[in-house]
Amino acid sequence: MITSSSNQRVKQIIQWQTKARERRSGGIFLTEGFKLYEEVPAEWVQEVYVTEDALEKAGTDSALRDKLDKTGWEPVSPEVFGKMSDTRTPQGILCVVKRPEYCLEQMLSSSGPLLLVLENLQDPGNVGTILRTGEGAGVTGVILSEGTVDVYNPKTIRATMGSVFRVPHVYEKDLVKTVGTLRENGIRTYAAHLEGEKYYDSFSFRAGTAFLIGNEGMGLSRELAETADEYLKIPMEGKVESLNAAVTASLLAYEAHRQRRSSL
Amino acid sequence: MITSSSNQRVKQIIQWQTKARERRSGGIFLTEGFKLYEEVPAEWVQEVYVTEDALEKAGTDSALRDKLDKTGWEPVSPEVFGKMSDTRTPQGILCVVKRPEYCLEQMLSSSGPLLLVLENLQDPGNVGTILRTGEGAGVTGVILSEGTVDVYNPKTIRATMGSVFRVPHVYEKDLVKTVGTLRENGIRTYAAHLEGEKYYDSFSFRAGTAFLIGNEGMGLSRELAETADEYLKIPMEGKVESLNAAVTASLLAYEAHRQRRSSL
Repeated sequence: MITSSSNQRVKQIIQWQTKARERRSGGIFLTEGFKLYEEVPAEWVQEVYVTEDALEKAGTDSALRDKLDKTGWEPVSPEVFGKMSDTRTPQGILCVVKRPEYCLEQMLSSSGPLLLVLENLQDPGNVGTILRTGEGAGVTGVILSEGTVDVYNPKTIRATMGSVFRVPHVYEKDLVKTVGTLRENGIRTYAAHLEGEKYYDSFSFRAGTAFLIGNEGMGLSRELAETADEYLKIPMEGKVESLNAAVTASLLAYEAHRQRRSSL
Repeated sequence: MITSSSNQRVKQIIQWQTKARERRSGGIFLTEGFKLYEEVPAEWVQEVYVTEDALEKAGTDSALRDKLDKTGWEPVSPEVFGKMSDTRTPQGILCVVKRPEYCLEQMLSSSGPLLLVLENLQDPGNVGTILRTGEGAGVTGVILSEGTVDVYNPKTIRATMGSVFRVPHVYEKDLVKTVGTLRENGIRTYAAHLEGEKYYDSFSFRAGTAFLIGNEGMGLSRELAETADEYLKIPMEGKVESLNAAVTASLLAYEAHRQRRSSL
């Protein structure tokens, strides 16, 4: 049992919790809580830390016990766990997970891809919610600009509710170039834009589709917006000038889902 | 110019920033930043605090100057303003705003109301986003259970992006009773629910409609869900079990908007 927070592995976890760069160079991310532990593919798991309370729970939950047998685990005192944890009320289970490696080419090989392209989103909760809703709407991949918040940020991971394990995602350096690649692969790109004249539900998203989603405060950069095949308009009543980025992504992805459902 | 943070009014603002009960007994809420100050109805403004930097900006912005002339203002040193502010990088303008007083009866008097009923939502950002998207989708009122986070929480106010000034909203003690009142007024209530069998876009929301939105972790209470006229289903691919509460509200409100648009 690890009982000292000067333990090297504990120190490493604390670094990983707070520093995106450290997580990246380690090729890992962290998850906390039972739900995420249940959903993480066992072969992605590198280390598992648990408190006695969490082990007690495993005594009455055979799926959890089986998973712990499979992945292995290391007991930690509650005090030390409190220091390793990013949450206020830790559930007593923390997992070091190997990052998946997706590439853009894979995303393009499915038939009729449905992609979300995120430019410089800054809110970890938004990015997490986009992965979660994206999975729900049948999105086949999420492409993030390098200026977008770390998808492996603990807050993002929590907000994905496990979708981070299932929705292919990839960071790209140059989104303008990426959109070019999408076009070469027959994927049409759409930007929600003030200059859009046609409502978003008047386009057909049944074939390969990518939605460009801009930064929370600034929207899409002009450079990226100009690469879009179409501008679309989300109607807004009252004095609303724009919608939250995760809401925009959700409305567009679910409109695509609605069309693809009805064409089945 | 207020230069001391032991000033009584400064102390009061700091209390208001952190304590929902104090804000309630004062009958006020606080807004920060230029955008919200521009959008607040002048007759709601009780006090305005500004730094010199903010006044300088007013020197080059005539709409801002006119508004300051109208509402009055009190200069504050940057140090004191930093203490009054809830944000990390304050814009130097803070406003004490009188709470609007809406009542349920008003919300029912419009023709074909479109209402969102929020049960025990805990995330201030979610509630703010729901007001913002709600305004965009033409929602005519938001009803909140008493267990829902304070809509006048600084984080919620920010997330509304000004919609808090325009979307009628009211706290109700007993949502089961409220739904009864809605029914008596010819409004149909819909709950997104695991037991829903028909997709959300197969109902007609053209007449008076209320959507019940449940708590982030627990969903709707059984008691409230049972009052709904219909359960509806939002399709979810992959392993997604539920969507974020603000996303659910957005999808439903915009589906209603889509139908109401096309029936115009």
